[in-house]
Amino acid sequence: MKNINISFSSPKSYLLILILILILIPISSSTFSQSKTQKLDLMPYPQKIEIKEGKFRLTPDFTIAIKGSGNERIYKSASRTLRRIANRTGLFLLQDFITNNDETDTCDLIISCLKPGKVILGEDESYSLNINERKIYINASTDLGAMHGIETLLQLIAVDEEGYYLPAIKIDDFPRFPWRGLLIDVCRHFMPVDVIKRNLDGLAAVKMNVFHWHLSEDQGFRVESKIYPKLHELGSDGFYYTHEEVKDVINYAAERGIRVIPEFDVPGHATSWFVGYPELASAPGPYKIERNWGIMNPTFNPTIEETYTFLDNLFGEMCELFPDEYFHIGGDENNGKQWDANEGIQKFMKENGIEDNHALQAYFNNRILNTLTKYGKKMIGWDEILHENMPKNIVIHSWRGKEALVKSAQQGYMGILSNGYYIDLIQPASFHYLNDPIAADSPLSESEKKKILGGEATSWAELVTYETIDSRIWPRTAAIAERLWSAQNVIDVDGMYKRLDRIEYLLEEHGLLHIKNYDMMLRRLTNNTDFTALKNLVDVVEPVKFYQRHFQGVKYRQHSPYSRIADAARPESKTAREFSRAANNFLENANKEDCNYIKDILINWIGNHDKLKITMNVSPIIREIEPLSNNLKLTAQLTLDAIELIELNIKPDLDWTLKSTSILEKAKKPYGQVELRVIDAMEKIIKKCCSD
Amino acid sequence: MKNINISFSSPKSYLLILILILILIPISSSTFSQSKTQKLDLMPYPQKIEIKEGKFRLTPDFTIAIKGSGNERIYKSASRTLRRIANRTGLFLLQDFITNNDETDTCDLIISCLKPGKVILGEDESYSLNINERKIYINASTDLGAMHGIETLLQLIAVDEEGYYLPAIKIDDFPRFPWRGLLIDVCRHFMPVDVIKRNLDGLAAVKMNVFHWHLSEDQGFRVESKIYPKLHELGSDGFYYTHEEVKDVINYAAERGIRVIPEFDVPGHATSWFVGYPELASAPGPYKIERNWGIMNPTFNPTIEETYTFLDNLFGEMCELFPDEYFHIGGDENNGKQWDANEGIQKFMKENGIEDNHALQAYFNNRILNTLTKYGKKMIGWDEILHENMPKNIVIHSWRGKEALVKSAQQGYMGILSNGYYIDLIQPASFHYLNDPIAADSPLSESEKKKILGGEATSWAELVTYETIDSRIWPRTAAIAERLWSAQNVIDVDGMYKRLDRIEYLLEEHGLLHIKNYDMMLRRLTNNTDFTALKNLVDVVEPVKFYQRHFQGVKYRQHSPYSRIADAARPESKTAREFSRAANNFLENANKEDCNYIKDILINWIGNHDKLKITMNVSPIIREIEPLSNNLKLTAQLTLDAIELIELNIKPDLDWTLKSTSILEKAKKPYGQVELRVIDAMEKIIKKCCSD
Repeated sequence: MKNINISFSSPKSYLLILILILILIPISSSTFSQSKTQKLDLMPYPQKIEIKEGKFRLTPDFTIAIKGSGNERIYKSASRTLRRIANRTGLFLLQDFITNNDETDTCDLIISCLKPGKVILGEDESYSLNINERKIYINASTDLGAMHGIETLLQLIAVDEEGYYLPAIKIDDFPRFPWRGLLIDVCRHFMPVDVIKRNLDGLAAVKMNVFHWHLSEDQGFRVESKIYPKLHELGSDGFYYTHEEVKDVINYAAERGIRVIPEFDVPGHATSWFVGYPELASAPGPYKIERNWGIMNPTFNPTIEETYTFLDNLFGEMCELFPDEYFHIGGDENNGKQWDANEGIQKFMKENGIEDNHALQAYFNNRILNTLTKYGKKMIGWDEILHENMPKNIVIHSWRGKEALVKSAQQGYMGILSNGYYIDLIQPASFHYLNDPIAADSPLSESEKKKILGGEATSWAELVTYETIDSRIWPRTAAIAERLWSAQNVIDVDGMYKRLDRIEYLLEEHGLLHIKNYDMMLRRLTNNTDFTALKNLVDVVEPVKFYQRHFQGVKYRQHSPYSRIADAARPESKTAREFSRAANNFLENANKEDCNYIKDILINWIGNHDKLKITMNVSPIIREIEPLSNNLKLTAQLTLDAIELIELNIKPDLDWTLKSTSILEKAKKPYGQVELRVIDAMEKIIKKCCSD
Repeated sequence: MKNINISFSSPKSYLLILILILILIPISSSTFSQSKTQKLDLMPYPQKIEIKEGKFRLTPDFTIAIKGSGNERIYKSASRTLRRIANRTGLFLLQDFITNNDETDTCDLIISCLKPGKVILGEDESYSLNINERKIYINASTDLGAMHGIETLLQLIAVDEEGYYLPAIKIDDFPRFPWRGLLIDVCRHFMPVDVIKRNLDGLAAVKMNVFHWHLSEDQGFRVESKIYPKLHELGSDGFYYTHEEVKDVINYAAERGIRVIPEFDVPGHATSWFVGYPELASAPGPYKIERNWGIMNPTFNPTIEETYTFLDNLFGEMCELFPDEYFHIGGDENNGKQWDANEGIQKFMKENGIEDNHALQAYFNNRILNTLTKYGKKMIGWDEILHENMPKNIVIHSWRGKEALVKSAQQGYMGILSNGYYIDLIQPASFHYLNDPIAADSPLSESEKKKILGGEATSWAELVTYETIDSRIWPRTAAIAERLWSAQNVIDVDGMYKRLDRIEYLLEEHGLLHIKNYDMMLRRLTNNTDFTALKNLVDVVEPVKFYQRHFQGVKYRQHSPYSRIADAARPESKTAREFSRAANNFLENANKEDCNYIKDILINWIGNHDKLKITMNVSPIIREIEPLSNNLKLTAQLTLDAIELIELNIKPDLDWTLKSTSILEKAKKPYGQVELRVIDAMEKIIKKCCSD
């Protein structure tokens, strides 16, 4: 939170102070409550927590019952809960499945919900969780809320010398935003159903409720169409979801309270459609499935009726397949080149007074909107669909900037935010965490703020395969989940990271590979030899950020190898985070323990280079990062020298200072599309030693 | 091979010797060839290898083409090969997919096959692989053979200072047996489609060609029936495969040259069927899905026509769904209790002159055989279906002993072996490896031997879940795959283990979790704290063998936790194998290096116990093995003492000897259903120190 400077120079100030105190009371009490309960590794952090005395002991006799209008979904969820508890604790629980035969009053965990929740935007997801020494109660209006309560309960399982227990507690919880999602791009690289399912489990575990399924792209059309089968037959390389699979995924998601929003990206990003149906493009074919990355030219021809007939039929089929009220039409990154070059389109625009490509796209969108409206759907699309000619009942999905979201809210449009949640850009969790759909200093009025429905993390898949996707989504998406669920003032980054470490581990119970595949990839990179030295290095690197991987002399395509160090490296180095913390504590507080930790790890890094060279002999694939390993060694040696100088209170000579500057600069350079994440902290120590 | 003692006492012996030499020549030359090429980590080991001079270098320009009557399957397989090479080497290969547009002559790898293989018993699976410095040729009669050649090629990828290469070589290869399979029990614990698919990839990688899908059991009926929907609706807890999923799996298997044999186990092992259709059982219902393990009573009533009408309709449906010529009817472990107790059945037997339950089952089987014959299928079933009343065109699946297989072959029945391939019994790879379907001293004639089609590893799933199944199947099943593919005289156990270590690693590229889930389970067992100490211990334990886990005071049921140490522990401890080798080398050759290795590891084990106690504080689930950890410490201390005494050439006093005997005995006791695998080797050292 910001520091507030108040001047006491005038009497009016007293009134101001009073007002400020009144405003701050709820904030402070909530902050207090947050820090008091920070020891609870819950994520997303609940709205209200009251910690009580006592512990509920988990024993083999532990039982669950459902009360109220139990529907099939909550019974299944409760049965899965039994398995999750048993797997973690090794307790031989007695119940096989929770059924309505289970005696409510004698059971330990009693889940009550008034009605089955509808998996639609705005459904009641609130719950309360009440644990005392003898009983656990989850109460909710809908089973969707109850399932959120179960996830909180499972995060609460703790351990002491006697065994496993749940702390006595009272939690009242509800989401801040109703739209909390993850987009998975299954087009640039196909993601099989099991990848989707385990990520749905992950989403449910952090109380997210939207899976945005990005189903069509230049590089692939990923869903079976029975009406236009050339879409998937010619546009997918055989990698597509059948209707049965789509229904299975939707059902799996709904059982976890998650809506599925399909995206069919039009009029651009559509090359794969035109492989089978070239007549719908704005330039003559033939077309091939795109294998490169970037913004491509092929775009629907918005001036021919065939386009609308086709999309009307196809969207009719897809609107039936996907039950959600919202239907995403993409609409992004139409570069207009095919439109500019097409005489017929230019003529059409003149004849119809359409002044530019944006207006032409709005015309196209309006036609599509008619189709969707006919099928009972609401339209959602990226920023670019925002146009004065569009009606107010569409949802703007903001990817280019939060300003766009503000503007659209002010114009009366509903919106969701993805700008700042682009997890494919390999930014740290803290960045996403502090990215609020409604900034603290938002210029929006209260009613305008209500137009902002939430946000979505986006897992674009140019550089992601089924092997690496989990580590790109998790754990960072859990931080976004918290931003979208928890109170606006829950913004303590250190606390977030502490809780994230535990949530990251708990997410493994859904079969997610975000932790497991790290060692697997290191094993492959080292041809199944000892990978200790490689791990020491990869532990402190991160893939280059934003879109840099495309601009470092490597031309990535759809079938390039995504099995190199840049793919194995995790988006956020924990070792670097810890090293940085220790460096600060050493520099600011001369902390001895951290100083020793730093020295040990520096010595390890210095010795690591020669060890890694041995590994490189059997592993040509890793040779590209040899300079990086050498730079780590050189910088670590400098830093070790600097610490000695600091401890001896000696200033280095100019030669040393110049040399250190040169080495540090070189060490900032990426190799193999990864960069050393520990240089900043080492630079701080070196600079400190050079300064008075 | 056995030692052959020959007496030179009579002239006739010379003739005998000559004959023996002629017989042995091919064996010795093959043995020689095996040891010469043992450096090639191929598995299953090819029939004939000729190593040449030179290396084919893998570069980004590497390309593949298909020659001959290329069918879709071989193009897909070749495209997957591109990905596998790229992933391992990091090479940015140029081809996206192999198509018939690829120019054959200029490509590097040319795959030629004369015709599309049929995925049926007995299809030609032979291939030749020819690598020189400039070209690679795979030639095969069918694409199934060519795909085996591709797997061999992928196992051959090697590395040197210049990069990745393939050694110049000429391989001619073909399978010894035509039926090389793996049974997966998806009933005791359900296995989702992705588990099946990744294991199909594993099977293909080791040239196996049968997936035996054990689909019905007391504990679950796992396939959708459109004719009798209560089978899956009431008999599966919702865990079953839809027809679409079954077709998808069959298609996936066929693309890898693997036949899918469904098993519907009748007349016993059928409790789950009777939940929906109790009228077909031999005792009145109602029935519930069985949650316990063991041999259960519920059995089809073989004396009522309803049974045959039902099975005729159901098997008609399933015979259409599963295209393979063979249909497995189970038939095992019918305990006859319901038949004995049913007056109607007893009356029927008397009236029809059926003398015992075995004969009644043969009557039942003959009726089922009529049904299967009508649908164009051949019957396969377990040992128990063998009966003099059965015709000779059935296949006997031997699980109770090799004698049964010999007997059935002598009686003219075809047979396959699973006895000795029960991988759920947690025996070492070497045991399965040396278990030959046709023993070297087999009493069978050559024509009788031809009746033995091969064998199947069996992954029964009482104690196995989707989390642990891969580690129970792999790598041991690769040793069975070699037994069934390679020449009978390829039996060098040390060589097998050396190659198995590499194959185990390569199998990871199919997404198999046999390596990855070990750390995941240790992480969960230690509540995400440092698991080094636990790993030190679990590295040297193995789950208790055979059916012992059921008889150590723990009552396992379907939904018990299978996440304990006994589940994390691998079936075969590599550390124990290495320790044992080192102990022998120390004792037999006084090897200094191994002595030091042993001392280091003993010191580690001694110190490990106190470290593990700290972990136990946060991990109640692992406390059950505290005595085991203590026993490892005590035994390691004894062994360290013994080594010192041996080195000083001092004999211990009687007290020490008695104490050591007592400690060793205690250390052999299992805790938590695991046992220390290193006691035997330590005992050898201790005994040595006490002897002469």
